[in-house]
Amino acid sequence: MSKNPDGKQIKVGILGATGTVGQRFITLLAEHPWFTIHALGASSRSAGKPYVQAVNWKQTMPIPSIVREMIVQECRSQHFVDCAIIFSGLDADAASEIESAFRSSDLAVFSNAKNYRRDPSVPLIVPLVNDSHLSIVPQQQALHDPPLKKGFIVTNANCSTTGYVIPLRALEKAFGPIESCLVTTMQAISGAGYPGVPSLDIIDNIVPYIGGEEEKMEWETLKILGGITDGDDGRKTFDMHARHPLRVSASCNRVPVIDGHTMCVSVRFQRRPPPSPQQVREALVAYTPEAQSIGCPSVPVHAIFVHEEPDRPQPRLDRYYQDGAGVSVGRVRQCPVLDIKFVVLANNVSIGAATSSIINAELAVLKGVVKVE
Amino acid sequence: MSKNPDGKQIKVGILGATGTVGQRFITLLAEHPWFTIHALGASSRSAGKPYVQAVNWKQTMPIPSIVREMIVQECRSQHFVDCAIIFSGLDADAASEIESAFRSSDLAVFSNAKNYRRDPSVPLIVPLVNDSHLSIVPQQQALHDPPLKKGFIVTNANCSTTGYVIPLRALEKAFGPIESCLVTTMQAISGAGYPGVPSLDIIDNIVPYIGGEEEKMEWETLKILGGITDGDDGRKTFDMHARHPLRVSASCNRVPVIDGHTMCVSVRFQRRPPPSPQQVREALVAYTPEAQSIGCPSVPVHAIFVHEEPDRPQPRLDRYYQDGAGVSVGRVRQCPVLDIKFVVLANNVSIGAATSSIINAELAVLKGVVKVE
Amino acid sequence: MSKNPDGKQIKVGILGATGTVGQRFITLLAEHPWFTIHALGASSRSAGKPYVQAVNWKQTMPIPSIVREMIVQECRSQHFVDCAIIFSGLDADAASEIESAFRSSDLAVFSNAKNYRRDPSVPLIVPLVNDSHLSIVPQQQALHDPPLKKGFIVTNANCSTTGYVIPLRALEKAFGPIESCLVTTMQAISGAGYPGVPSLDIIDNIVPYIGGEEEKMEWETLKILGGITDGDDGRKTFDMHARHPLRVSASCNRVPVIDGHTMCVSVRFQRRPPPSPQQVREALVAYTPEAQSIGCPSVPVHAIFVHEEPDRPQPRLDRYYQDGAGVSVGRVRQCPVLDIKFVVLANNVSIGAATSSIINAELAVLKGVVKVE
Amino acid sequence: MSKNPDGKQIKVGILGATGTVGQRFITLLAEHPWFTIHALGASSRSAGKPYVQAVNWKQTMPIPSIVREMIVQECRSQHFVDCAIIFSGLDADAASEIESAFRSSDLAVFSNAKNYRRDPSVPLIVPLVNDSHLSIVPQQQALHDPPLKKGFIVTNANCSTTGYVIPLRALEKAFGPIESCLVTTMQAISGAGYPGVPSLDIIDNIVPYIGGEEEKMEWETLKILGGITDGDDGRKTFDMHARHPLRVSASCNRVPVIDGHTMCVSVRFQRRPPPSPQQVREALVAYTPEAQSIGCPSVPVHAIFVHEEPDRPQPRLDRYYQDGAGVSVGRVRQCPVLDIKFVVLANNVSIGAATSSIINAELAVLKGVVKVE
Repeated sequence: MSKNPDGKQIKVGILGATGTVGQRFITLLAEHPWFTIHALGASSRSAGKPYVQAVNWKQTMPIPSIVREMIVQECRSQHFVDCAIIFSGLDADAASEIESAFRSSDLAVFSNAKNYRRDPSVPLIVPLVNDSHLSIVPQQQALHDPPLKKGFIVTNANCSTTGYVIPLRALEKAFGPIESCLVTTMQAISGAGYPGVPSLDIIDNIVPYIGGEEEKMEWETLKILGGITDGDDGRKTFDMHARHPLRVSASCNRVPVIDGHTMCVSVRFQRRPPPSPQQVREALVAYTPEAQSIGCPSVPVHAIFVHEEPDRPQPRLDRYYQDGAGVSVGRVRQCPVLDIKFVVLANNVSIGAATSSIINAELAVLKGVVKVE
Repeated sequence: MSKNPDGKQIKVGILGATGTVGQRFITLLAEHPWFTIHALGASSRSAGKPYVQAVNWKQTMPIPSIVREMIVQECRSQHFVDCAIIFSGLDADAASEIESAFRSSDLAVFSNAKNYRRDPSVPLIVPLVNDSHLSIVPQQQALHDPPLKKGFIVTNANCSTTGYVIPLRALEKAFGPIESCLVTTMQAISGAGYPGVPSLDIIDNIVPYIGGEEEKMEWETLKILGGITDGDDGRKTFDMHARHPLRVSASCNRVPVIDGHTMCVSVRFQRRPPPSPQQVREALVAYTPEAQSIGCPSVPVHAIFVHEEPDRPQPRLDRYYQDGAGVSVGRVRQCPVLDIKFVVLANNVSIGAATSSIINAELAVLKGVVKVE
Repeated sequence: MSKNPDGKQIKVGILGATGTVGQRFITLLAEHPWFTIHALGASSRSAGKPYVQAVNWKQTMPIPSIVREMIVQECRSQHFVDCAIIFSGLDADAASEIESAFRSSDLAVFSNAKNYRRDPSVPLIVPLVNDSHLSIVPQQQALHDPPLKKGFIVTNANCSTTGYVIPLRALEKAFGPIESCLVTTMQAISGAGYPGVPSLDIIDNIVPYIGGEEEKMEWETLKILGGITDGDDGRKTFDMHARHPLRVSASCNRVPVIDGHTMCVSVRFQRRPPPSPQQVREALVAYTPEAQSIGCPSVPVHAIFVHEEPDRPQPRLDRYYQDGAGVSVGRVRQCPVLDIKFVVLANNVSIGAATSSIINAELAVLKGVVKVE
Repeated sequence: MSKNPDGKQIKVGILGATGTVGQRFITLLAEHPWFTIHALGASSRSAGKPYVQAVNWKQTMPIPSIVREMIVQECRSQHFVDCAIIFSGLDADAASEIESAFRSSDLAVFSNAKNYRRDPSVPLIVPLVNDSHLSIVPQQQALHDPPLKKGFIVTNANCSTTGYVIPLRALEKAFGPIESCLVTTMQAISGAGYPGVPSLDIIDNIVPYIGGEEEKMEWETLKILGGITDGDDGRKTFDMHARHPLRVSASCNRVPVIDGHTMCVSVRFQRRPPPSPQQVREALVAYTPEAQSIGCPSVPVHAIFVHEEPDRPQPRLDRYYQDGAGVSVGRVRQCPVLDIKFVVLANNVSIGAATSSIINAELAVLKGVVKVE
């Protein structure tokens, strides 16, 4: 079992613990080598009940024994003061207020909610891509009145964005800026939470629209793949990939798949001539994000697994590989309109959600951004 | 009931009558105002049996009474000499030889098979798009030794190609040449015939690959949307859209939908500035193919139905509209990478298959290409 | 087109017009030979809007033009006074109060809701089974204070009950009382309304439980298949099949099927020896309910269609036969534990819901229970 | 890690290694504490190739490294002489001849095929039910000419039979003979192998028929739950539950579920009064088959897991519990027609297939029926 820098168990809390993302946090954290689940937060309807009574458990493994009888708290910071890390699986309608209050109470929040992703002082981190953006946390803390010592908010990206920016980052690292990217998604129903998509809408059907999703993908990609600019005043700013403008066009579809977002991606590089399909395959295989090299325990062995079979990746067969912590890429080939096209599969409930938050927290611990006492 | 030019019932034969496409031909032709099913052809295994015993009927309506007890024949032209029109739903492994033999016997064959689509003297006709290509039929007849009087082969396109070239044609008619087109398909299982896709491969899954499909879409689009060039020697040649080169990039996926191919399409026009989304919507609504204006009985009222709701078209709700003889388009909007993007839905078993062959035959009757005695 | 006794168009209103059942009433009544949609009722949220704006239309055909711009009303009787018949597709939480109020306003209500099914003066009618129970309506009217002249409530049965009591009734008619019946259902998701069953609960899954459904089937069967007893005081009572006690055991399952409830049924007759499978098949084919003989326009030609193929009925292939107004039975064979077993398929959104209400109303018109002015 | 009696690795071979059941054997045996995969057999088409090239791998985990490059053999006994145990996942059309030939070569065959299940000298063993039937093996060996020392065939049951006889056995053990049993199955598509059920037949559908399945369930149940009678001549005979005749009625349906057969079961006991639902629940929980008590490494902790929630078991949530080696039971309640009814879920590809063969082999090792050198 890997050791964190201080060799201690780190207490963590989970907000939205009875929801879909909260349940995933619990299944992942119950086995975590560093983190120990210490507190669970949910709505006042659940507060005061043992977890087993509060939750409508929908995972394929039983409720971990460590949380079964744990009493659910309301999402107030006084119940979580002993937690070095807070994981938030809150719904968007609750996340703004609660996450802000927790930060103000000097708690470190790793959020899966969308609310603060566009905040200019909050990093939007896909852990296999842009953990360097953690460098903006001190500025976020300094902006608070009074300045915070330990509290901050780090967000992770939309489940669709997460999956495809990992290969895009690998390609930019190897071949320089991407100029344009056209992506069509086929997204799993679990991405909509529970109860989420009515069965009458999706069995034997495709819904070629997911509200707000295309805008999220097009915007988040720029923040994640862009860098951070140091201003003359010492202020750091997300540059939104502005030095090499990147145009992204997303078409998002809901499909009758339980877990795993499949995406058809075409890219055009600035570099002329562009890399060949074989060069692209090699660059994807070779990609090693910092989270791997510094030893985050939840990172997969293969950040990007490249399939050679012509008909892979497929969600049902490939989504659970490496516990869904990496992404699968296949069908790398030339695109007659842009340069290169390929298929990406990302497990939306793992690397697309809770797993990303957890690796982000691991990165923050290893880099000293989270202060472990 | 509409009348054909001569006001007579026209006898037709169906090859591959027991297969998936053959069953569709039968359901459509049983109610046809001009055409009367006169002969059914299938493999030697079925020959000699009443149709009801030869077929594994998979349609949601009962077997039409007119064919129930009709004796199935082998696919030899002598059994079909009384038929003015032959519809072929043959599999690719049988179509080359049989369709050629029928043509040599001076029979007019309208084929749903892929075998002759690339033949330089055989028109590849999507009836709502390029019926003008029927003009090459006399050349095809003349090339035969001895020259044919009535026999020829006309093919219709792949089910995916058919659906999206209809709006592309409408756009080229209104705004001039399209320069590039990127299309990602989500194709129904019925497109693979029966038994076709194993359920273990597609329930809760996406297969991001359909063998040969992307090449078909990329090539067929050029033949269909291109024109016919008259050479100095009087020979007609398909120009493959060469005067205004068109680049097509297709990514084809199989999805767990029974009927109806959904496609996300992005296009770039030569014209600068390109048309606005609203202009595109209007052009699609206004599109009136010749098959409508000259009165083919099987054409839909709306060649292209444009949805205004943000989440349509959807295969389960929209595929049977107008008996699947038109296409649905929705979500017309700007594409940040190319110019315009939209969603197309086409019923692959109707306009994408048998319905196209039937309208092609209606066009050929009205234009005198089929000689009705 | 068939004629009602008075040859007049009969004005009808629809309560719950924007819901799932309401949408079905509209699609069926838009083409009805006798009934004309005159008023639409829904919640106050929808009231005042044109129907097209109030509804989230989920049918595979477009909204009928007759109701598209019709203004939706609140469900108050003053808006429906011109309607000779009220069809109710109200949810259970609204039906008790509103249906009662409409009856008190002397309106004839044909309800699809469960609320009054157990009322001792309200008939629970499956139109192909026990229309004779309409005879209790005068007693229901007399019980009201003041007595009603035209107002009453007639209910139809649960969608599962409806399907299987039709063959049970045919068997009792031919062979005398059934002693016990064991039925296992595989019920379509549309039976739960919209949004209904979350897709995460049913794709690649079975839910072996539907709240209250087994009790409904076990109880409703007795009321429907039982007779009406005339008491010494002239009061009519539903006898609940008490003269020949009938034990029913139902096991209800939700399955990933859109429309069509499939049921495996085993029965034991009182008669020894029991009828043979062939006798049962013949009795099912021969069954002719009164609704057919007196000319209800919405009854199917075959009340019970008996399949000979070993693997039928199947919901996807057989549910739309006769517009779902009859039921399909197949696999009639001996049961090693009881006497006979077979499979029933009933379209839960047609004969299992709106179609039953409509035929009930047709019966009531033909029998003079509804007074048409 | 548990130890076998001799503490040695036991070499095993797999027949039909490239098929669906063969792939399951490989994934299970790759991690087995006693058994080491030593040889792989398949058709002559695959023979001579490394496994990775011969197989169309369809499991959600990658091919285990131990077999990846192993050369596939033809199914001839000379290639398997070093194997103490042969697991057969052969198709029925190949199993008769090959399994017989292997037995004649004095090899111990544990077969998943149906071919020898009805053989009066071959035991049909569900490992959590009737391992006592191994006692007939010496008789089987003696019948061979010349008599066998080590060779024999042991079969396991049909996937549907296996699941429901486990609770039936628990009930007979606690409450004495069951008199009649009515079972309706909802069976997963993986039960039909690959390619198996065409997707066009099962998406949005139920097929209320599986060829031969009902007969298998009705017959196999008697052999498994019955005992062995010692004749006057010393010959052992399967008594087919004849001392307490048991009537079984099965109705088998195919449903759109990938893995996991769900069954609705009603039983009537001989004992009057019958046990209460609570007594039944307790008996199911308490059931401890011999395979658990003697320490087979592949048995689950809970042979029968009893759910208290009203809507469980469900295949998608519960099929992988304990790696599918036990069964789940829920909804134990009174049956108005027979005595008690409940729902069983069994993972057809685990306890319903390969897992049963493996536990049977473990039992045979522990009981000395397999001779390990």
